[in-house]
Amino acid sequence: MSTIIVPAHATSITDDVEQLHKAFSGWGTNEKLIISILAHRDAEQRKQIRETYSATHNEDLLKSLDKELSNDFEKLVLLWILSPPERDAYLVNEATKRWTKSNQVVVEVVCTRSSHDLLLAKQAYHARYKKSMEEDIAYLTKGDFRKLLLPLVATCRYEGSEVNMTLAKTEAKLLHEKLDDKCYNDDDLIRILTTRSKFQINATLNQYKNIYGEDIIKELEEDSKDEYISLLRATLECLTYPEKYFERVLRLAINKTGTDEGALTRVVATRAEVDMKVIKEEYLKRNSVPLDKAIAKDTRGDYEDMLLALIGCVDE
Amino acid sequence: MSTIIVPAHATSITDDVEQLHKAFSGWGTNEKLIISILAHRDAEQRKQIRETYSATHNEDLLKSLDKELSNDFEKLVLLWILSPPERDAYLVNEATKRWTKSNQVVVEVVCTRSSHDLLLAKQAYHARYKKSMEEDIAYLTKGDFRKLLLPLVATCRYEGSEVNMTLAKTEAKLLHEKLDDKCYNDDDLIRILTTRSKFQINATLNQYKNIYGEDIIKELEEDSKDEYISLLRATLECLTYPEKYFERVLRLAINKTGTDEGALTRVVATRAEVDMKVIKEEYLKRNSVPLDKAIAKDTRGDYEDMLLALIGCVDE
Repeated sequence: MSTIIVPAHATSITDDVEQLHKAFSGWGTNEKLIISILAHRDAEQRKQIRETYSATHNEDLLKSLDKELSNDFEKLVLLWILSPPERDAYLVNEATKRWTKSNQVVVEVVCTRSSHDLLLAKQAYHARYKKSMEEDIAYLTKGDFRKLLLPLVATCRYEGSEVNMTLAKTEAKLLHEKLDDKCYNDDDLIRILTTRSKFQINATLNQYKNIYGEDIIKELEEDSKDEYISLLRATLECLTYPEKYFERVLRLAINKTGTDEGALTRVVATRAEVDMKVIKEEYLKRNSVPLDKAIAKDTRGDYEDMLLALIGCVDE
Repeated sequence: MSTIIVPAHATSITDDVEQLHKAFSGWGTNEKLIISILAHRDAEQRKQIRETYSATHNEDLLKSLDKELSNDFEKLVLLWILSPPERDAYLVNEATKRWTKSNQVVVEVVCTRSSHDLLLAKQAYHARYKKSMEEDIAYLTKGDFRKLLLPLVATCRYEGSEVNMTLAKTEAKLLHEKLDDKCYNDDDLIRILTTRSKFQINATLNQYKNIYGEDIIKELEEDSKDEYISLLRATLECLTYPEKYFERVLRLAINKTGTDEGALTRVVATRAEVDMKVIKEEYLKRNSVPLDKAIAKDTRGDYEDMLLALIGCVDE
């Protein structure tokens, strides 16, 4: 469900590297050329481009881009060039460097990636930062936030589709009891959210609907001025309806007075090759405006062009 | 530092498989033959033997062994035949099935394995039990036990040798303060034990010694009648001095009125190819009796022979 458009007969990696090198030389930088190449290569091709560039020009492509580009466009291109695990490691590390209780990037990364991809991100974190994601998150957080975030980051969830329906019923009742008493930091509530498989949690949420006629995520919405409850809600949404979560992040980023480019850049760079098609459908359904129109209205220049290319809208 | 003796010119895997098959047929089982093969093949060879056996005789070697052998000898051979990740998954699952607060097997497995080996064990757990180690541990435990065990099981620790000495000093002071106040379930104490790298924790323990002239592990020993404190102590020991921990488990297993065969079997099967040489040295130092003499005194028959072969003592 990737939205990037990769030409069926792409030029060779060597040609791409030479074109990029050319884009950096002479008077000024040729941003159009950079977009026309990088926005239309998949993760494996970008990896090869980066390797070949480094071998041929004796400099990391990231460094060359860093010298040539600037502002939001640069941030988007750099995030896009990183491999998915490096990118996730970087996003979590950035979140820890500017830690605030309202930051939901960590929950987003650890709850929307597969166990395998999260593991690769952790290994990339070890390699780059010489410490673990877990210790940074645990060190920075306190109280309820740590109680929720540490196991959320640490757990390696089962990914099979088997579901225990009896357990789903029991745990739906347990969740209802705790939410009814407003015990949002209850040990068992956190245990369920942080350790059960996504399929199992989904079954539990369905049982909740069947028994109580209510949607947990919506219930949490009402209290969402509280940062911790907001995080709980993001956790459940990322685990069970990631595309709805991402639609909301995009909506809030775009509808803000002054766009939240950080969020927009992050969601486009991380989801373009994953589920951006579904996110676009969700966006249209919820806002009655296509995502590309909304982005085009709110952004400009190379940044706009690159975003639109990544979500699959290219003027030909 | 493996203690098993693998012949330099081993017979072929096919020959091993035929010999094993022969050992099971005719009147009675030829246990000596089984020991002479299986106790002298490394993990990779045993894996190939199991695969070839299954392909040739249309039955899992584990099943054939299960039919032919019995009691402690059977348990040891079966544990030995499992691949290390399957074995760890099995041990943790067995611990969850007979859960008691004094059970330290989970701490032993998650704290003495490398991050990579623990990850493989988790994957084996997913594959075999269709759920995660984390959810089983979290489901079974409560209060302080869960608070310590869940992140201990879940965390993927950094394994590089870099150490932050300033942090080690700060956290040594923090640990001292908490232990002084007998706050054994303190959030930060648990955070340090469950998320820092083994090298970092070792540095913190050394700083603790330097500043306060005391050894945390020994301090915890004084209070070790409490099951939770005992678990804290096992955690620290497994993280920093696994060979001392295993020496103690063996000592207690052997010196009991009535040997604790479960513990003896587990330690020999899991450590023979890892650090049994060092554990033997520790054992001799602490008990003034070589481990093989102690085992020979306490066990008999094929079980004894197999144990001795695995710790590298074979009558020739």
